[in-house]
Amino acid sequence: SDGGPKFVSADGKRSFQIGGRLQFDASTTSGSRYSDKSDGRDISGTEARRLRLDFKGKIADHLHYRLQYDLAGNDASVRAAYIEPDFELAGHEVKLYFGNKYDDRTLSGATSSNNTWFMDRNFVNNAVEPDRGPYGLGVKGKIYGHNWHYSLAVTSGAIGRSNDTSDNVTYMSRVHWNPWRRGPNMVHLGAWGFYEDFDRSDSAVYKRIRTAGHFNDNVRIRSRLLRDPSSSQAYGFELATSLGAFAAAAEYGHRHVDQRDSAGGENMAYDAYSVEAGYFLTGEHHGYSHKNGVWKFPHVKNPVTGGGYGAFEIATRYQALSFNDQPNYPGGNGHSTTIGVNWYPADWGRIMLNDILWYTNNRSGDYKGPDHGNTVEARLQVMF
Amino acid sequence: SDGGPKFVSADGKRSFQIGGRLQFDASTTSGSRYSDKSDGRDISGTEARRLRLDFKGKIADHLHYRLQYDLAGNDASVRAAYIEPDFELAGHEVKLYFGNKYDDRTLSGATSSNNTWFMDRNFVNNAVEPDRGPYGLGVKGKIYGHNWHYSLAVTSGAIGRSNDTSDNVTYMSRVHWNPWRRGPNMVHLGAWGFYEDFDRSDSAVYKRIRTAGHFNDNVRIRSRLLRDPSSSQAYGFELATSLGAFAAAAEYGHRHVDQRDSAGGENMAYDAYSVEAGYFLTGEHHGYSHKNGVWKFPHVKNPVTGGGYGAFEIATRYQALSFNDQPNYPGGNGHSTTIGVNWYPADWGRIMLNDILWYTNNRSGDYKGPDHGNTVEARLQVMF
Amino acid sequence: SDGGPKFVSADGKRSFQIGGRLQFDASTTSGSRYSDKSDGRDISGTEARRLRLDFKGKIADHLHYRLQYDLAGNDASVRAAYIEPDFELAGHEVKLYFGNKYDDRTLSGATSSNNTWFMDRNFVNNAVEPDRGPYGLGVKGKIYGHNWHYSLAVTSGAIGRSNDTSDNVTYMSRVHWNPWRRGPNMVHLGAWGFYEDFDRSDSAVYKRIRTAGHFNDNVRIRSRLLRDPSSSQAYGFELATSLGAFAAAAEYGHRHVDQRDSAGGENMAYDAYSVEAGYFLTGEHHGYSHKNGVWKFPHVKNPVTGGGYGAFEIATRYQALSFNDQPNYPGGNGHSTTIGVNWYPADWGRIMLNDILWYTNNRSGDYKGPDHGNTVEARLQVMF
Repeated sequence: SDGGPKFVSADGKRSFQIGGRLQFDASTTSGSRYSDKSDGRDISGTEARRLRLDFKGKIADHLHYRLQYDLAGNDASVRAAYIEPDFELAGHEVKLYFGNKYDDRTLSGATSSNNTWFMDRNFVNNAVEPDRGPYGLGVKGKIYGHNWHYSLAVTSGAIGRSNDTSDNVTYMSRVHWNPWRRGPNMVHLGAWGFYEDFDRSDSAVYKRIRTAGHFNDNVRIRSRLLRDPSSSQAYGFELATSLGAFAAAAEYGHRHVDQRDSAGGENMAYDAYSVEAGYFLTGEHHGYSHKNGVWKFPHVKNPVTGGGYGAFEIATRYQALSFNDQPNYPGGNGHSTTIGVNWYPADWGRIMLNDILWYTNNRSGDYKGPDHGNTVEARLQVMF
Repeated sequence: SDGGPKFVSADGKRSFQIGGRLQFDASTTSGSRYSDKSDGRDISGTEARRLRLDFKGKIADHLHYRLQYDLAGNDASVRAAYIEPDFELAGHEVKLYFGNKYDDRTLSGATSSNNTWFMDRNFVNNAVEPDRGPYGLGVKGKIYGHNWHYSLAVTSGAIGRSNDTSDNVTYMSRVHWNPWRRGPNMVHLGAWGFYEDFDRSDSAVYKRIRTAGHFNDNVRIRSRLLRDPSSSQAYGFELATSLGAFAAAAEYGHRHVDQRDSAGGENMAYDAYSVEAGYFLTGEHHGYSHKNGVWKFPHVKNPVTGGGYGAFEIATRYQALSFNDQPNYPGGNGHSTTIGVNWYPADWGRIMLNDILWYTNNRSGDYKGPDHGNTVEARLQVMF
Repeated sequence: SDGGPKFVSADGKRSFQIGGRLQFDASTTSGSRYSDKSDGRDISGTEARRLRLDFKGKIADHLHYRLQYDLAGNDASVRAAYIEPDFELAGHEVKLYFGNKYDDRTLSGATSSNNTWFMDRNFVNNAVEPDRGPYGLGVKGKIYGHNWHYSLAVTSGAIGRSNDTSDNVTYMSRVHWNPWRRGPNMVHLGAWGFYEDFDRSDSAVYKRIRTAGHFNDNVRIRSRLLRDPSSSQAYGFELATSLGAFAAAAEYGHRHVDQRDSAGGENMAYDAYSVEAGYFLTGEHHGYSHKNGVWKFPHVKNPVTGGGYGAFEIATRYQALSFNDQPNYPGGNGHSTTIGVNWYPADWGRIMLNDILWYTNNRSGDYKGPDHGNTVEARLQVMF
């Protein structure tokens, strides 16, 4: 979102910037054995995936703010909304975020949706998340080193929740380290975890994770439903590398949810993993931030705005998710293989094409039993 | 929306612009025979008709974008949201729109709400529309000649629809031609049509068209309800002229909806027409775009900002709509006569006063049988 | 909201400005005897209290507009939205507002949420308000003298209401006068009132006023429910002074609601009062507008941006509200004492800390009978 206009005061101490992103998707699914009904899984259509506006600025030295929202659902929903002071601590830059901020959790998740290699983030990010969702209201701190960063967030609920009960409190942390760096080449190690303290008013944990891209609401992997949860703990690991035009990443995540003793004292555990690789046919490096340990938008060598052909990337991903921790309980499982082709005409946008071969084996809901299919989807994206 | 600030990069290749429009309406209805209940037709009140913000810009040569939304419903709903490349084809300018775009359908409908002669668009536009509404998500192309344009759109659903079924696919086209032009004087011919392929999940077609202005939700002409539609086809014609301070337009539209054979294989047909005329007492021409075949805002000769009295226009419209295609089925019909007075103080706004004599004869709903009344409404409008 | 960028046209006749405010709150309540349930009164959490964007500008000499909305509820809701001409009348400045505008009602209420001494406005403002809420759609006029202003508003409904019945019409007026002024020192007298004409479709008047800050939805003082209201009348008085670093204010308000004769012809009356005082430990004056008779943000003498420590204010408030007008009917009552500490680092923000000792005695709802407790809450606020 750095393409919009930026206004700087005469003394340079204040600034204001407007940006945004537009992402339009089309999707079609075939091959499911649940194809012959109006509400089957073989459905097609389009959606505005993200229509974001981003207002941010600097109020004074070491004090920034940001207010971002998304209009894709045909209403406004808040994304980033925070007050951000920064300072130095023992020679390290430290940033604090008060307000609403996206989680620093998984390599796929911490990466902006403008920059992910595939149209959707991976199972590790989407399934191993706290029940408040990927945004939390509270305070987050980030400390930066030369080849690493560490973040710690304490959040209490999320924006727009009702105020007639106490919020869930969530503690979350992530660290990344680049043990090796040479120019744009690097090795990335990461780890993260969270602990979630459920309020008594929280009635159940229940996950339904999209498996055939975001458009298709019917292809999901479903967990069982655990009533009266007391707390959950989760952790995950990240391994990635970028070598010339090639890059690869592997992630694993695990979550364990405990039930209140009064409700039976059971628990639910599940895990997910993902391995993915990308290659630029046109020789670009994969964009990467050594500061935050996330993927960035590539720098296009021959943009169309200079008469070039832009950058072409091919990418593939295999991911699996299993809620099937108890033979007697209805937790499903599944996996998917994605092949992607991305064209980056210049630094302000891209066209994505994803082909997903998916498999689900649910033990609850409308689409029980083994089922597989193929989903083809495309995206047009511009950032301003 | 060309009054807001526009920011252009140093090389002129990028730009960004914010604009908007505010429209506030007041309305009062009298004379209905359904007057004596708290939920009768003789109601009065005010509404914010449109509160729009419009963010648009140029990312690179031949690549624009736009994100526009309306806050009048006390939430945000998306209007235009698209990525717009343009190029030349055989000497003709071509624009493509990927995303969400207002229909190019009817002369009244294609004209911006800032520029219509009356507070509301006509029956032809409001009744002969696809079930997805006047905005569709997809791709539209427009090609421009010297005295004509042609547009073709393929859309799949609309923004914010649920993703558990396939979208309705709609094909729509419009052409306009000016067979005669001399300065601002012209003759306008237009034709349009659409074909709509209903998804099996679409349960019914059912229209309720406002007849006494937008505020009054109770004065409507109601169609019968056709279950399990399979497809619809519609077409319409436009004839208009502008001669000095005088202008006139006539429109006709027809729609035919087919039911699935499994539900009975019946069909529903209806049509609407409108004739309207306007005259500037202060001598202005009616604004008109030869490029897009739509009415524009007039150029005010003596704006109040220059010490003048602005521009005064009087206008009148007669329109009729009939859903009464089958004697045995409950489709209603009705018509209305509107007299309007518009004052344009300058190029950034206007005050509108409309008096509507309406007649409805519904065969379903709360207000059955012949009924007529009078609605007076006023609007304050500014554009920035 | 004067910190955002302002764009002025070359001739100075047009301008455009973007601003906003972010307010994040945390709250925790203890001591209620309704503490031991998941939906009790002793709850804790955070909320985004206000996330506002404000677009305003000048279209021509003597013609402004404004469109402001709030995203704190995780959707957009409209605040100010109006067209504002101004002119001179007998040597006095007059402003008109067409559209949606916040009430000029009570000293606490007319003061911007950026500038109130406490995190929430007082009972007089929050309880003695018309049923349409603090925003109305219509026309307001304000006339200004040297030491006084007078406002009169006629509104019909509010933004986003349904259009199948007539709107409630509300008449409201406020006057303030400064009988004594010397530099920033002053005495403020004020009075206001409103008359509300209920539409027949309005089924009941029923108030539930938050008593332990905005976050806690469960601590409220509840009125009884009066069915089929016909009209309401309300009035109130304001007394305030600012003397050096000290300031104080007292307010009283009363409302009387009449029932339709057909429903019994009863009535309901209630009143509220508040006394409050503040003192700047760092010597600042309390910001105050002699023009509008409202509190303003203080001018910080030693801002942190200049190496100073900002401004520190201590404040206290006692307020009481009684719906207990009829021994046989279930109207509750209550009161609260608040101690506040505010730190203003500079002119663009502040941190607030409030401690509220509250008491409620409801005769309806889930939390009947005498109950008291303590609520501690904090706010982070920036304006841009």
